Amino acid sequence: MKILLPDTIDLDPALPEGWESATIDARAEIPEEHWDAAAMVVWGSSRKNLASAAQNLPDLRLVQSLMAGVDHIMKAGFGDGVQIASGSGLHSATVTEHTLALLLSLVRRLPEARLAQEQHEWSRELGGIQELHPEGRITTLLEARVLIWGFGEIGQHLAPVLKALGAEVTGAARSAGERAGFPVIAEEDVLGALSETDVLICVLPATDATERAIGAEVFDALPEHAIVVNVGRGTTLDQDALLAALEDGRIGSAAIDVTDPEPLPSDSPLWDAPRLLITPHGAGGRPVGASERIAENLRRLDAGEELLHEAG
Amino acid sequence: MKILLPDTIDLDPALPEGWESATIDARAEIPEEHWDAAAMVVWGSSRKNLASAAQNLPDLRLVQSLMAGVDHIMKAGFGDGVQIASGSGLHSATVTEHTLALLLSLVRRLPEARLAQEQHEWSRELGGIQELHPEGRITTLLEARVLIWGFGEIGQHLAPVLKALGAEVTGAARSAGERAGFPVIAEEDVLGALSETDVLICVLPATDATERAIGAEVFDALPEHAIVVNVGRGTTLDQDALLAALEDGRIGSAAIDVTDPEPLPSDSPLWDAPRLLITPHGAGGRPVGASERIAENLRRLDAGEELLHEAG
Ligand SMILES: NC(=O)c1ccc[n+]([C@@H]2O[C@H](COP(=O)([O-])OP(=O)(O)OC[C@H]3O[C@@H](n4cnc5c(N)ncnc54)[C@H](OP(=O)(O)O)[C@@H]3O)[C@@H](O)[C@H]2O)c1
Ligand SMILES: NC(=O)c1ccc[n+]([C@@H]2O[C@H](COP(=O)([O-])OP(=O)(O)OC[C@H]3O[C@@H](n4cnc5c(N)ncnc54)[C@H](OP(=O)(O)O)[C@@H]3O)[C@@H](O)[C@H]2O)c1
Repeated sequence: MKILLPDTIDLDPALPEGWESATIDARAEIPEEHWDAAAMVVWGSSRKNLASAAQNLPDLRLVQSLMAGVDHIMKAGFGDGVQIASGSGLHSATVTEHTLALLLSLVRRLPEARLAQEQHEWSRELGGIQELHPEGRITTLLEARVLIWGFGEIGQHLAPVLKALGAEVTGAARSAGERAGFPVIAEEDVLGALSETDVLICVLPATDATERAIGAEVFDALPEHAIVVNVGRGTTLDQDALLAALEDGRIGSAAIDVTDPEPLPSDSPLWDAPRLLITPHGAGGRPVGASERIAENLRRLDAGEELLHEAG
Repeated sequence: MKILLPDTIDLDPALPEGWESATIDARAEIPEEHWDAAAMVVWGSSRKNLASAAQNLPDLRLVQSLMAGVDHIMKAGFGDGVQIASGSGLHSATVTEHTLALLLSLVRRLPEARLAQEQHEWSRELGGIQELHPEGRITTLLEARVLIWGFGEIGQHLAPVLKALGAEVTGAARSAGERAGFPVIAEEDVLGALSETDVLICVLPATDATERAIGAEVFDALPEHAIVVNVGRGTTLDQDALLAALEDGRIGSAAIDVTDPEPLPSDSPLWDAPRLLITPHGAGGRPVGASERIAENLRRLDAGEELLHEAG
């Protein structure tokens, strides 16, 4: 049986017996010689590539994405016999690192330090003797109350690092309970928890239920010193509401790695929003452990076992 | 017996029996009514304050600094009967956090993201599909080889956080061996280890032996992609050599929280050095657990036990 690998990433999965691989151009239609494939890996694959796979591969049984979000694959028209597995978990380490970079940059006031540096100014406000918890602003994660909204693979990877830095971490997901040793509240309780939240980190997937979930109500409910970071999906955040909240000083500062649309148009007012950091969807983008995931899901496919991160 | 507390920080130590406290102006000479003090706490205390203490307090037995570096107190002229204890450990959490902020900002290319943001540019280079380990640059701590030069309280607090982020951490101190579960090399082996170092983090105290230890030889020995962070003391780094190394592209990027002198003069060429972040000694500056440390060292003083972090 044949698995198609994209040419957008170096992959070397240990294939189970009976499998062979072929590398294809992820931006082009799938050539006829490969229409016999039973599995394909998706990474940086164009819409054209996905559509041709959905149309032309009658024996296809598995689409293994390396991306955590598979919204676009779900919409590509694959038949019922095709199982779709997301790359959830492959980005937990890199997104955790980027989220920390954004958050710590805001907490430790690096944008202000940069301005002072440009002016050759040794700022007495940013250094020397300081209060640990100055009124009206978060300058350390020590004892900071962090809510991670979307407490899946990435959220649960990030949480212990924040805890190690002294933060008090709570998760929010579709159902409440304890996960990975952290208290988790249900989505309907998020709004009520925000007044006790210093840092809100959003790692929500793009779904109908999450669309614009991070909106004016959220920014209003947060304390004025709150820091908001979104590394989930751009559609989950109301950008107009974010801009207004920053301009009106209703939240302290924010960082977003995802926007709607992407790329963010050059005339978007968000670029110049005060106290906002923007990175161009650079948190993940480099799966860790992809070959192992592919090999394991092929094995499970053969054995008729449930796939890792099968998308429903 | 009397302990003098500075007015520069809120302190509430649980004093052992027989002790009382008085709060003094840390910037002024010590008033005669307090010349009977047996202990004093130093935080943001002026040279004048220290000198008057050294001269006028005949019963003084303990100077408890809240700063990790006590070089200035050692030079203040206290008599042999006075024990000096450093605040080592009280800054481990905050300096760890700041070091991470600086390092992750460089690793995750936030200065470049900021420039792109100013130009309303969604940079294709900083986001989207990326290589995990691109040739010639460090864009993640995953598998990055980190050397922490000065592996005391702060270094050992920082190391497990870096390890949790996927880095391979080695320490360097005055003697080799394993500490806190990490391999530690001796200072004489540092130069030889640099060619295998992606990230050099310096947390050295200011001593004769460490003066300008981070100099041209160090920058030459590091790979061209190396990131250098100094959060120890400004005197431990040769600023001219750093500037030259950055200008010549002999190292990747750097961040310094400490300079020599401080404040850094506004005409210093360092302010405009390429790929350099400067923060104005803002890593620590807010001791965590100071009251507990004071109480414990008073108890030890009474009991004739060795003090915590007694300076030699
Ligand atoms: N910026 C980037 O470069 C980057 C990289 C990778 C991923 N991402 C984004 O991050 C998202 C999360 O990734 P992941 O691997 O952590 O996914 P995951 O393991 O599927 O976790 C998603 C989490 O979101 C929660 N959730 C879903 N709908 C919700 C709702 N309506 N209200 C509250 N919580 C809700 C889920 O709750 P339950 O657990 O209760 O189902 C789960 O905890 C991805 O979907 C992707 O869009 C971004
Ligand atoms: N930027 C800030 O805001 C800030 C805040 C707090 C502290 N600091 C600075 O950070 C320094 C370290 O603090 P700490 O609490 O970690 O102190 P520490 O516990 O005394 O540790 C100092 C470390 O440096 C090592 N060392 C000393 N001389 C050395 C040499 N010649 N070669 C190699 N290693 C040497 C020591 O080695 P041994 O263990 O073998 O003795 C020890 O591992 C302080 O002295 C202070 O100057 C800066």
